[in-house]
Amino acid sequence: MQPIRIAQFGLGPIGLESVKYLATKPWAQIIGGIDIDPLKQEQSLGRLTGITALDDVSVYASFDDLCEHAKPDVVLHTAGSSVVRSIEQIMPMVKAGAHVASTCEPLLYPWLTAPQASAELDAACMAAGVSVVGTGVNPGFVMDLLPVVMTGVSTRIDRIKATRVVDATTRRGPLQKKIGSGLEPETFQSLFQQGKAGHAGFCESAALLAHSMGWHVTADDIVETLEPVVADKPIKTEHVTVEPGQTRGLHQMVKVMYKGELVIDLDLTMALCEETPHDTVTIEGAPNLTLTFPDGVPGDQATVASLINSVPRLITSKPGLRLMTELASPIHDKVSILGGSHFIMPGEKAVS
Amino acid sequence: MQPIRIAQFGLGPIGLESVKYLATKPWAQIIGGIDIDPLKQEQSLGRLTGITALDDVSVYASFDDLCEHAKPDVVLHTAGSSVVRSIEQIMPMVKAGAHVASTCEPLLYPWLTAPQASAELDAACMAAGVSVVGTGVNPGFVMDLLPVVMTGVSTRIDRIKATRVVDATTRRGPLQKKIGSGLEPETFQSLFQQGKAGHAGFCESAALLAHSMGWHVTADDIVETLEPVVADKPIKTEHVTVEPGQTRGLHQMVKVMYKGELVIDLDLTMALCEETPHDTVTIEGAPNLTLTFPDGVPGDQATVASLINSVPRLITSKPGLRLMTELASPIHDKVSILGGSHFIMPGEKAVS
Repeated sequence: MQPIRIAQFGLGPIGLESVKYLATKPWAQIIGGIDIDPLKQEQSLGRLTGITALDDVSVYASFDDLCEHAKPDVVLHTAGSSVVRSIEQIMPMVKAGAHVASTCEPLLYPWLTAPQASAELDAACMAAGVSVVGTGVNPGFVMDLLPVVMTGVSTRIDRIKATRVVDATTRRGPLQKKIGSGLEPETFQSLFQQGKAGHAGFCESAALLAHSMGWHVTADDIVETLEPVVADKPIKTEHVTVEPGQTRGLHQMVKVMYKGELVIDLDLTMALCEETPHDTVTIEGAPNLTLTFPDGVPGDQATVASLINSVPRLITSKPGLRLMTELASPIHDKVSILGGSHFIMPGEKAVS
Repeated sequence: MQPIRIAQFGLGPIGLESVKYLATKPWAQIIGGIDIDPLKQEQSLGRLTGITALDDVSVYASFDDLCEHAKPDVVLHTAGSSVVRSIEQIMPMVKAGAHVASTCEPLLYPWLTAPQASAELDAACMAAGVSVVGTGVNPGFVMDLLPVVMTGVSTRIDRIKATRVVDATTRRGPLQKKIGSGLEPETFQSLFQQGKAGHAGFCESAALLAHSMGWHVTADDIVETLEPVVADKPIKTEHVTVEPGQTRGLHQMVKVMYKGELVIDLDLTMALCEETPHDTVTIEGAPNLTLTFPDGVPGDQATVASLINSVPRLITSKPGLRLMTELASPIHDKVSILGGSHFIMPGEKAVS
């Protein structure tokens, strides 16, 4: 059995965690990293991650550079939140015959803001026989994929509500900045209005829900708002310092109207020193369903898990620009990847 | 766009509810029912369900009889809990080119107890280019599919625990009998040991979990036990009467050992007058994840939902004897069924 040859594009905090988790997978062979930072290009993936087995694995300046040395089956893309820029980066990978899983948030449903680029990428995927998917914990699981899965036991769906409260105190630096930590509330609100801060991919979560429910809404029906959460005492984390009166996080909401009714109601709080992290999803309809994660679903670790765990399902999916809802459920066994009619051929297993 | 021509095999309580729900789906055309009961064969599906639009839809004595009048694209199979008997019934449907979704509980993972028949059915599916799946709410969702979906955000999975408590007081008659209601505890225990009572498909839930996690267990590693739940006061439902000291339900458990560790721990209570129905799923690992449905997931309605909602995903899946974990996530729009690269072509929708 040949391992899957995987390259990591983007070596920020998430990219490096991705490499570390991937190194635990017997089905994966890590063939290189890619990053624009010259300081990282001088080091091996072993040096950057502390995993000695990767001491001989190089970091390249570009995907082209990597390809001169090794051809990947899969590229893991963790390089920013711009859907247009990400599709520009991913297109050459697809044309080179590589599947791509990405944490770029709006790639969860890129058709919402970039339908033309999405259609071109979808066509390129079909031509090359490979698949691309945008994934993560949020977007990618808690407020979109999970509610969709829940509706499998619904005979009628009137409204989908999801509330997520995240304590960002111990999260990575880029995330603490993204939620406005340490900014004056007006400054943060202004950056959000310019699309330069806030939780990315939130409207795409709503768009994926609407898509799966068959609610044919337009982008104008998806309304997103943000309120800064203001600190009432000083906060100091590993990455930022917040004075009283400054922003310690965000309260962001997305609401979708369809045929005169509020059908999607998403409510997200991510803040430093936020005290009761949890996730709740409610499907109003028949039956009424309420699900909670009393302690919440952790962020960064779950994002990396979602990225790596999507690989076996992605490479066996139908070629194209896929949605997370179009992939099979997770499968964690290396045998799964090279199955025949099944991911795993159950008849070949000992369960009989 | 042609509607999907669907026949309902088995017209017990679940089969009739299935027809009623299906009648609400614009993508479905109900072409006939099939039941061995001559009294039902004399009536139309309209008479049996109260839906006048089905007044001209007949009930046939067999699948062959149906085929003389109309060829179905899909058959919904709700006719008992024997995997061998169900596969015998389903095989001619597959050979006639029909996809089949079934509530036969052990069909969730038929390879566990009937690997040879499963392999033959899988081969027949591939030859005919159709798919078969076993589904439902439990097995089919709460204690198997849902935990597998949760592990999509796990970097390590040590143990899967699921607890389900169901109040069966208002459930259908066959289910109240299945859980032993009104039997002497010894009688019920004896019937369970003979495979004639108790919750069916429980070991298959565990087998599907093990399969998805890559835990290569054998049937001997899956240990199922049952304790009757005894009434301490008289109970009378629409279907049964229970005296004090008689059985009012079951407490059934499945435990799976793998490499010396308890890796799967499923705990099910289904009883009349059970006071706090709920569902809890725990993934022990990294991260630790606990999810609860504080009010539980209702049974019969959710079973029918799971059956019908599987159809769009089943007919677009890879041909074969599929697992629920191999299907895409639910999609509720009729457009979804005739898509191109996607179930729905997002570029064709208004979400842009």
